[in-house]
Amino acid sequence: MSQPKYLTGDKAGIDEFLSRFDVFLFDCDGVLWSGDHMFDNVPQTLEMLRSKGKQLVFVTNNSTKSRADYKKKFDKLGIPAKVDEVFGSSYSAAVYIARILKLPGPKNKVFVLGESGIEQELEAEGVPYCGGTDPSLRRDIEPEDFANIANGTLLDPDVGIVLSGLDFHMNYLKTSIAFQYIQRGALHLATNIDSTLPMAHSFFPGAGASSAALVKAVGKGEPTSFGKPSQAMMDAIEGKFQFDRSRTCMIGDRLNTDIQFGIDGKLGGTLAVLTGVSKKEDFLAEGAKTVPSAYVDALSDLLG
Amino acid sequence: MSQPKYLTGDKAGIDEFLSRFDVFLFDCDGVLWSGDHMFDNVPQTLEMLRSKGKQLVFVTNNSTKSRADYKKKFDKLGIPAKVDEVFGSSYSAAVYIARILKLPGPKNKVFVLGESGIEQELEAEGVPYCGGTDPSLRRDIEPEDFANIANGTLLDPDVGIVLSGLDFHMNYLKTSIAFQYIQRGALHLATNIDSTLPMAHSFFPGAGASSAALVKAVGKGEPTSFGKPSQAMMDAIEGKFQFDRSRTCMIGDRLNTDIQFGIDGKLGGTLAVLTGVSKKEDFLAEGAKTVPSAYVDALSDLLG
Repeated sequence: MSQPKYLTGDKAGIDEFLSRFDVFLFDCDGVLWSGDHMFDNVPQTLEMLRSKGKQLVFVTNNSTKSRADYKKKFDKLGIPAKVDEVFGSSYSAAVYIARILKLPGPKNKVFVLGESGIEQELEAEGVPYCGGTDPSLRRDIEPEDFANIANGTLLDPDVGIVLSGLDFHMNYLKTSIAFQYIQRGALHLATNIDSTLPMAHSFFPGAGASSAALVKAVGKGEPTSFGKPSQAMMDAIEGKFQFDRSRTCMIGDRLNTDIQFGIDGKLGGTLAVLTGVSKKEDFLAEGAKTVPSAYVDALSDLLG
Repeated sequence: MSQPKYLTGDKAGIDEFLSRFDVFLFDCDGVLWSGDHMFDNVPQTLEMLRSKGKQLVFVTNNSTKSRADYKKKFDKLGIPAKVDEVFGSSYSAAVYIARILKLPGPKNKVFVLGESGIEQELEAEGVPYCGGTDPSLRRDIEPEDFANIANGTLLDPDVGIVLSGLDFHMNYLKTSIAFQYIQRGALHLATNIDSTLPMAHSFFPGAGASSAALVKAVGKGEPTSFGKPSQAMMDAIEGKFQFDRSRTCMIGDRLNTDIQFGIDGKLGGTLAVLTGVSKKEDFLAEGAKTVPSAYVDALSDLLG
């Protein structure tokens, strides 16, 4: 594998690199911002790319937000973006369920283990759902619940799919209900299975962690998931934007999700940005598993 | 591997089998009872074994109950037993922490992810702890918690161990705190890592499931655990009862925990009881991984 090209401060290198692509897929957290802190000169960098006629797509694994929620975040930080440019793992999962899986009704209802981002995207795609933010399930399990889950009283007979994502309200009751649905034949899908979530300059349990109780109880390994680096997400993006993969570049801060996503998708290139999780030592090391085509210290270094 | 001997109805076979052992280790749920339903003639069977001078030890992975709690359950069902005959995964973990690990103070406090059974056994062994059933942690995570966990405000500086067990009150807040302790160097131990819990004639998430969020976030595989089939538990039982392994028999309903526990511990024999999880087809099948020495339809078949 060839060494990645270091582009910071290399004006000619940047021009040559950008000229090879028509489409840029962006990871958001760790690239455009960290939490609520936007990195320097992000709007100017995106504007520069748009002025060169590049198509931009913002690809995020965070399932707690819908595309509309993300648009609000872009607006708040002053980053110009359109809802249609945002592609999230909740949207990706909803599109898969509605347009590809197409379970026959009435047993096509989705039991959601996650936040409102998933519910909004299912609703936008016309998929019936339950669970999710339902306040009646945000409580401790009580002794009588065990029998009522086991005998089906607490279950919706139309549920055919359990969809899990990041759930800040994970609990034993919802996990038990989801587990019972799966024992009765429901399919388990996940928006994404990230082990951690970068927050507050530290790490917190990610979507893969909040649904890990269910995965462990089922005992069949990780479910089909739609977040990076799953190629189900790349296929969904391509289905919408019809891009030429050889002229597309993935930009991200995490080697094992963002950069691997681009490599597995056989994109023309990948660009690592050092404002997030992965460090340059991770890919410059002898025998590194995931190596980007190029890297910059910060996204705005592309301004030259 | 030789075929297991079917003892139900075989009076001579039973006498010969029982004569080979001085000590019987019993699994409880699925052998003595199912939930709150005691199987027929259990007290008589235990009495018969005691009358022959056998030592009985009740070995349970359920970490939500202390030995004292278990004694109450035996009393309620009318099964004669002494607290000293009960050996639970919480007790096993507490003994390991107090007598073997012996972390130097003050950084020897245990953050508990689990119920009061763990707290009681830690207390009995004089181990300081926090978390567990603390009502201030049985709540949703709030936005300000992220920073307060990341910067340590919500943490106890003396925590050196996270001990996880079955937690009916698992939540994102406690998991995040436990994850932060581990990122800061705390050791992760588990009472047990059972994937499921048999309840109400069905299955619910077990201790391994309720702590799976933490395990997934940490990303280093399962923690050291003290429940069957972990030999840490066999060593702990042996440390207390000083038995001759060749004259000891493990009786249980689950092949992958109970019977494997006896085989790995090089006990003189194992007896499967078909009133619980595993079916005889599971061990009579060609190429079965875990095969007991003998089996009965129900424990009371040992009465002949």
